[in-house]
Amino acid sequence: MLETWASSGVDLHLDRAGPRVRASLEGQLREAVRSGRLAPGLRLPSSRSLAADLGVARNTVVDAYGQLVAEGWLVARQGSVTRVAGRAPEAEATPAQTGAARRLRYDLRPGSPDVAAFPRSRWLAAARRALNSAPADAFGDAPDARGRPELHRALAGYLGRARGVRVSPDRIVVCSGFTQGLGLICQALRGRGATTLAIEAYGLPDLRGIAAGHGLRIRTLPVDQAGAVLDGPGAAGAPEPGPEPGAAGGLGAAGRLGGADAALLTPAHQFPLGGVLAPGRRTQALEWATRTGGLLIEDDYDGEFRYDRQPVGAMQALAPEHVIYAGTASKSLAPGLRLGWLVVPTHLVDEIAAAKALTDRYSSSFDQLTLAEFITSGAYDRQVRRARLAYRRRRDHLVAAIRQHVPQVRVTGVAAGLHALLELPAGVDEDEVIARAAARHDLALDGLRRYGPPPSTAAPGPNRPALVIGYATPPEHAFTGAVARLMAVLTDARRGQG
Amino acid sequence: MLETWASSGVDLHLDRAGPRVRASLEGQLREAVRSGRLAPGLRLPSSRSLAADLGVARNTVVDAYGQLVAEGWLVARQGSVTRVAGRAPEAEATPAQTGAARRLRYDLRPGSPDVAAFPRSRWLAAARRALNSAPADAFGDAPDARGRPELHRALAGYLGRARGVRVSPDRIVVCSGFTQGLGLICQALRGRGATTLAIEAYGLPDLRGIAAGHGLRIRTLPVDQAGAVLDGPGAAGAPEPGPEPGAAGGLGAAGRLGGADAALLTPAHQFPLGGVLAPGRRTQALEWATRTGGLLIEDDYDGEFRYDRQPVGAMQALAPEHVIYAGTASKSLAPGLRLGWLVVPTHLVDEIAAAKALTDRYSSSFDQLTLAEFITSGAYDRQVRRARLAYRRRRDHLVAAIRQHVPQVRVTGVAAGLHALLELPAGVDEDEVIARAAARHDLALDGLRRYGPPPSTAAPGPNRPALVIGYATPPEHAFTGAVARLMAVLTDARRGQG
Repeated sequence: MLETWASSGVDLHLDRAGPRVRASLEGQLREAVRSGRLAPGLRLPSSRSLAADLGVARNTVVDAYGQLVAEGWLVARQGSVTRVAGRAPEAEATPAQTGAARRLRYDLRPGSPDVAAFPRSRWLAAARRALNSAPADAFGDAPDARGRPELHRALAGYLGRARGVRVSPDRIVVCSGFTQGLGLICQALRGRGATTLAIEAYGLPDLRGIAAGHGLRIRTLPVDQAGAVLDGPGAAGAPEPGPEPGAAGGLGAAGRLGGADAALLTPAHQFPLGGVLAPGRRTQALEWATRTGGLLIEDDYDGEFRYDRQPVGAMQALAPEHVIYAGTASKSLAPGLRLGWLVVPTHLVDEIAAAKALTDRYSSSFDQLTLAEFITSGAYDRQVRRARLAYRRRRDHLVAAIRQHVPQVRVTGVAAGLHALLELPAGVDEDEVIARAAARHDLALDGLRRYGPPPSTAAPGPNRPALVIGYATPPEHAFTGAVARLMAVLTDARRGQG
Repeated sequence: MLETWASSGVDLHLDRAGPRVRASLEGQLREAVRSGRLAPGLRLPSSRSLAADLGVARNTVVDAYGQLVAEGWLVARQGSVTRVAGRAPEAEATPAQTGAARRLRYDLRPGSPDVAAFPRSRWLAAARRALNSAPADAFGDAPDARGRPELHRALAGYLGRARGVRVSPDRIVVCSGFTQGLGLICQALRGRGATTLAIEAYGLPDLRGIAAGHGLRIRTLPVDQAGAVLDGPGAAGAPEPGPEPGAAGGLGAAGRLGGADAALLTPAHQFPLGGVLAPGRRTQALEWATRTGGLLIEDDYDGEFRYDRQPVGAMQALAPEHVIYAGTASKSLAPGLRLGWLVVPTHLVDEIAAAKALTDRYSSSFDQLTLAEFITSGAYDRQVRRARLAYRRRRDHLVAAIRQHVPQVRVTGVAAGLHALLELPAGVDEDEVIARAAARHDLALDGLRRYGPPPSTAAPGPNRPALVIGYATPPEHAFTGAVARLMAVLTDARRGQG
């Protein structure tokens, strides 16, 4: 039982003359079908009669009907008879509102630099220079998935100078941060038949998910204050005595890497425990890689930031054909840029570039050109120096406050990067400290457990509760307030309230 | 037989005083180890004696040795004895220079807008306004993989107004172009157990690779001048008679989609054949999706550009819970931006966002904020209008030139988008035409076969040789010259020289 046009109650208003009449007519008809007021199958008036009713040219109605037929709202049968399409367009659902967590006033969680100090005007000036001088084809389809040559040259100079990386521009692949970089590496590894990636027991949880998502099995490496532990029982279960952690020159078989195809390490500054990979372990890792053809992935996420001495140079320089060096602008500038870079062994460049091409073709030329200009002009070095000074002061302030107020809390890890590990007295409940900081002190904190191995993994780690404090996260004006609140939280914990 | 320090011939020069002495010493030692002049195992002079030789403080040498031990170049054993590390750092290989094809002066290949007309100063002005007014946390780790809320709001307004998309900001996922967008969709589909994606027989070759790379089987849909052919024998081989192409209201079972989990279509302007999906086929597709729970992917890559009439509105509006609408800035602005967007059915938003988070967390906040401001300020609409006028003139010029000079060449497809299909007389060899255009006329062309189905696929397609002409590609000043050269190429072909 179809209703008729006359009984549908649809009342068209075309009160604007001129070229918009047709669009208005279409819009009203579309809405009438969408809302169900014009039911499926309903026969519309002929174009002649509707045009007469509305006082418009017949062609306006013909064109509007034609448009709606093309879009699927109406169907035209046997010449001039036009009906509402047979199936009712469905109602539009709305996604459930995601319940965003309440935003706390103070934030000492790790992972971000002080983005309030991002050099907006210097960045915009670099963007202006870069875009105005770029050849037009820089905005077109870049032929090279590895990225823009301007950025390759700028990064090659910077990485060689600042991090001792052995790099030529043609072995750099620009990617959207290390998250994507690891995904590209996993794709290339899988393409070569790799099955197993060794990962440090403590680290960013997402990295495990990325590797697993690409079909790789995870081997978990224990970590201590000297970085990843590489000797010890391998996959085959054969215990293999190795040199002591930190002992130099141990050329052991890196037993825990046995059977792995690749290993992801944070040699300059383990995240989140904060150690530097001991020289003997670097040697073990490199010896394993060169002997077995395994691949080392050196995640140098904050290598520019060392406060007590010169940063340890990149491990990649010792074996550039066995190490992928991975760097990022997420800590030195801002995570929102989504810019990272891989320095890739020659034999892997094509495969990583192919993975990039299939993932998103290449990274934004605009951001790449701007970063290239930012580096070449010297602004990047200046920004890193400024940030290094600011974060060093913040770390000193944090360490001094802890010594003074809660000496039973141990700050471990080297003086480097954007985070510190605070080991809490045994028996304190991490989660309760975090909950109390949020509820009573308006302060967001992260515990170590969040970065630990999945419960099913038996890899040993620190046995004490701990906080991973991102002292670079707050804006400058909020930093001392955040530390004061942290002291209040920790003092409470000491008093047995935690 | 190790040589000694004295016989190694390494001659250290430290001619700069001050803080750089140590860095210089380290650099020279590193290079000496790297080059092999200091052999593995070689014992270095004691720090005391080297310091005396060089006339520097002993601590400078101690620190330099310590640094190189930490980096793995040297090893320190039994207190003060320092040796070159046991394994020689490997030589650095250099990637083979990729033999880039000679760049031709004129380019009529499809895929790019006129990037020389990219509105650099308006874009930079939008970037300045956007970055200066953004909250600092816009540069930090965005909590939402879907993208920036500013861009969601701007796109929701634009897409509803310009393309009739039914959209709320919270169902938009910003991605790095459609290449990434399709990858995200494939990941979400695979996560739901999908196995098969139907793809138009003619299209971008990369899209098949992306779907296959995510483990999906490809079902090939024939295409003709009315878009994808959906009725006909399905996967089970059961022939199923359907309405004629272009016939309205055919509610057939869309037999060719039988057993597919999703179908990727270019309804507004088939790429590269240039047809508009016929109303009856739209209905078939939607009917199939709602009946079977299949997913339609509407690739609206150039929907803003129609020259003979109002663009056909998005198919998504008829069934927003069964269609993913995909748009991009690659044609309207520049591919180098790497910005696209998906409007996603409610039930898929979380899964697409999760795939995005694991792929690269989120897209550059800087570019997102700039595009949001560019749209909101009206600059995007103005740019689209300018480009539409320019490309329409170019298409008219191309069509007129062909009518005049090579009337035997047929221009097919609707007057829309950035490309036209030129069907060549039967017997002309596509590849030879392309080779001759490059060799004799300095003109880059693409043939239809490049976009066709793989040879193993039996899907029928156009039987004639054809060129896919991207008339938007050249800069304005080179356009008429490019067309003149194309006429020369085609005139040669007519004379039987092709």
